Amino acid sequence: MQENFNMEELMDLLFTRQFRKLKDILTEMNEVDIATFIEELDSEKTVVVFRMLPKELASDVFACLEVDKQEHIINSITDYELGTIVDDLFVDDAVDMLEELPANVVKRVLKNARPDTRKLINQFLNYPENSAGSIMTAEYVGLKQSMTVEQAFAYIRKNGVDKETIYTCYVMDAKRRLEGVVTVKDLLMNPYEEIIGNIMDTHVIKAFTTEDQEEVADSFQKYDLLSLPVVDHEERLVGIVTVDDVVDVMEQEATEDFEKMAAMLPSEKPYLKTGVFQLAKNRIAWLLILMISSMITGGILAKYEAAFAVIPLLVTFIPMLTDTGGNAGSQSSTMIIRGMAVGEIEPGDLFKVLWKELRVGIIVGAILGFVNYVRLVILYPGKEMLCLTVVLSLMVTVVIAKTIGCVLPIAAKVFHMDPAIMAAPLITTIVDAVSLIIYFQLACSLLGL
Amino acid sequence: MQENFNMEELMDLLFTRQFRKLKDILTEMNEVDIATFIEELDSEKTVVVFRMLPKELASDVFACLEVDKQEHIINSITDYELGTIVDDLFVDDAVDMLEELPANVVKRVLKNARPDTRKLINQFLNYPENSAGSIMTAEYVGLKQSMTVEQAFAYIRKNGVDKETIYTCYVMDAKRRLEGVVTVKDLLMNPYEEIIGNIMDTHVIKAFTTEDQEEVADSFQKYDLLSLPVVDHEERLVGIVTVDDVVDVMEQEATEDFEKMAAMLPSEKPYLKTGVFQLAKNRIAWLLILMISSMITGGILAKYEAAFAVIPLLVTFIPMLTDTGGNAGSQSSTMIIRGMAVGEIEPGDLFKVLWKELRVGIIVGAILGFVNYVRLVILYPGKEMLCLTVVLSLMVTVVIAKTIGCVLPIAAKVFHMDPAIMAAPLITTIVDAVSLIIYFQLACSLLGL
Repeated sequence: MQENFNMEELMDLLFTRQFRKLKDILTEMNEVDIATFIEELDSEKTVVVFRMLPKELASDVFACLEVDKQEHIINSITDYELGTIVDDLFVDDAVDMLEELPANVVKRVLKNARPDTRKLINQFLNYPENSAGSIMTAEYVGLKQSMTVEQAFAYIRKNGVDKETIYTCYVMDAKRRLEGVVTVKDLLMNPYEEIIGNIMDTHVIKAFTTEDQEEVADSFQKYDLLSLPVVDHEERLVGIVTVDDVVDVMEQEATEDFEKMAAMLPSEKPYLKTGVFQLAKNRIAWLLILMISSMITGGILAKYEAAFAVIPLLVTFIPMLTDTGGNAGSQSSTMIIRGMAVGEIEPGDLFKVLWKELRVGIIVGAILGFVNYVRLVILYPGKEMLCLTVVLSLMVTVVIAKTIGCVLPIAAKVFHMDPAIMAAPLITTIVDAVSLIIYFQLACSLLGL
Repeated sequence: MQENFNMEELMDLLFTRQFRKLKDILTEMNEVDIATFIEELDSEKTVVVFRMLPKELASDVFACLEVDKQEHIINSITDYELGTIVDDLFVDDAVDMLEELPANVVKRVLKNARPDTRKLINQFLNYPENSAGSIMTAEYVGLKQSMTVEQAFAYIRKNGVDKETIYTCYVMDAKRRLEGVVTVKDLLMNPYEEIIGNIMDTHVIKAFTTEDQEEVADSFQKYDLLSLPVVDHEERLVGIVTVDDVVDVMEQEATEDFEKMAAMLPSEKPYLKTGVFQLAKNRIAWLLILMISSMITGGILAKYEAAFAVIPLLVTFIPMLTDTGGNAGSQSSTMIIRGMAVGEIEPGDLFKVLWKELRVGIIVGAILGFVNYVRLVILYPGKEMLCLTVVLSLMVTVVIAKTIGCVLPIAAKVFHMDPAIMAAPLITTIVDAVSLIIYFQLACSLLGL
């Protein structure tokens, strides 16, 4: 993506020590862009530039930095400066950061926060990973039923400045139980003397603190929300999730699915920031499992040693057969896994899906078989039975691969496993074994081996 | 996901013809939920229920329906009813629908729209698919620099009700050129007599109509936006994109990547709504290409026929070798493709990535080799050279597979191709060929074949 600022100009001002001019430009810039600039700087210059920023902006920029830069800044500033920043951060940003920092740094951060901030952060840190509680923040606007629109506006004007969103306001009773929501649009469209209780929407779409973040993302997508209230099990409002965090959750969940579907354990950090040993660790488990599984396929082959000792040519069709089968199966499993991830396909659709894949398998298998047959009769004239063996095996393999590819992910879901593990690597290994059995059995009968 | 309403109760009321009570409940419900209910009904009941809805709500529900239900309703209502709905729809929803409908239905829809709506829809229909122009809508709040905060509020109160968002307002000059943005939060935090020109933000993050929707999504994610103005090449404001549409774009783009990475052409429709022939068509192209490529691998094998005619046991290690190589390579390519899709990895990172994958390949290859060696010396005592051949081939294959897996997606990007095609299927086919050459070359030298 194109940058919205002139990186070179800023670097130039920094290196020629034109700090006043640099400061003027930075103060006018978006916090995300300033963070992008700071990410490019070495340790020493990072602190120089960070200290140039006005207090308010400094916290905003700090929230946009990567955790290693944050750690470096924390270690370079005074306790007082640190306290100001922590108190200015939204709780969700503070929690995201603290979850990544080493224990001694976390201790220093919490020590310098105000007692109420510290209490809140500690509470939020305790919600399970990937739950609604772990991505919510505490900075929302809370109103009362008895307020008028005018009073609500006055309250927002006074308290709204440091809220993560002011556009959806939450109406609570004396025990902080959520009673309704009212948007600023509702407030603007109603007369000043109207009572909040009369215009609030009581059909509130909400989440519980322990609910999975994927379900939270689904709600946002289904109902086109900008924010979602999170309540505890006594229906008390404890925080809100905003759409910008949901956008990040969606990207993270998709990335995890890509990783799982390529036989890796999902990584916590971005690729370039993950160490070599961590990457190797994430990858070795499935590689070992799949390697051992494919030894079984080798065992199947060993049983037919006699067959390919007689006709060694049989061996040369193995890659074409197993690869095509594996690809056909992965296509189906990918469609089904993704369909379940976005909520389109449910286990109840099994027979609908199976019927569809069966027909697709027959069409695709027939075309592949035909192309192959033409090639084989040209290349190996006079060996019709061999050609027939290869082509028949291919067609049967494709149909079976498509069936396996759609049944296994759905079966995984039924047994409360993650469908994403039933992706290309595992499907390929299973289809390999199946296709070789079909191939050599057909060879034995058709070629009389 | 759990429904937020009682589907059975609604069905019951409908089938026992308690229409008044049903109508009362529906009127209180969220439009998304009403649409979910209507999706479950047959053709006749669909129209009965749809006609129960108050006019305002009917358009909202209509926008949430799948296109086949929309088409059925359009064909069952009067021209007058149709005109009302079309004029009430946001332009982006109308355009989404019209892009899917058959030409004669589109004609009838446009004929019954107001002339200005018709003109706008026609203009928006002309933007290229997947461009910012194709996902934007026209219902935004436009202000003037010279207005006061009080005038702005009055304007929003009067015109805001049918805007897609009122929370970000766009400030334009007399020629509709975008000069700045001001949020309702800014308006609320400033005194009534303040001039908009003084409080608007002139550093506007914007998109051009022809820009790719993926770039639009990136901007939303980077800057945590709720809406983004879209301008033409004369900087005139023509529409806005809102975050709810971006959430859909993100899901759609991820789905497309999953499809491409499993060797399929991306489908336009959800899986269950896609016909068998369309599915087969999306899948056959890559299956054919990959099948023909794996024939090359077969050709390589044919060259070593003499080798496995002497030691048929060699053949039984082929699946383990090619599968493990393929899996190792796909792991790397998946990480790199996804890293590039989310903007973390750039072609300039090639050497950083290569160095990382090389080390990961060596660690992973060593572990896999060791496990294999232990197994082989137990199973085949006295055949040390054979064991060594298999293990060495495996280790070299893994390292090369990881290298290919990271280089090819980056190379694709450099040559302006889609990195997603360099995923598991293609990588597997390439690694197959490479691993077999390594294996039989090693066998020939180490075993003296």
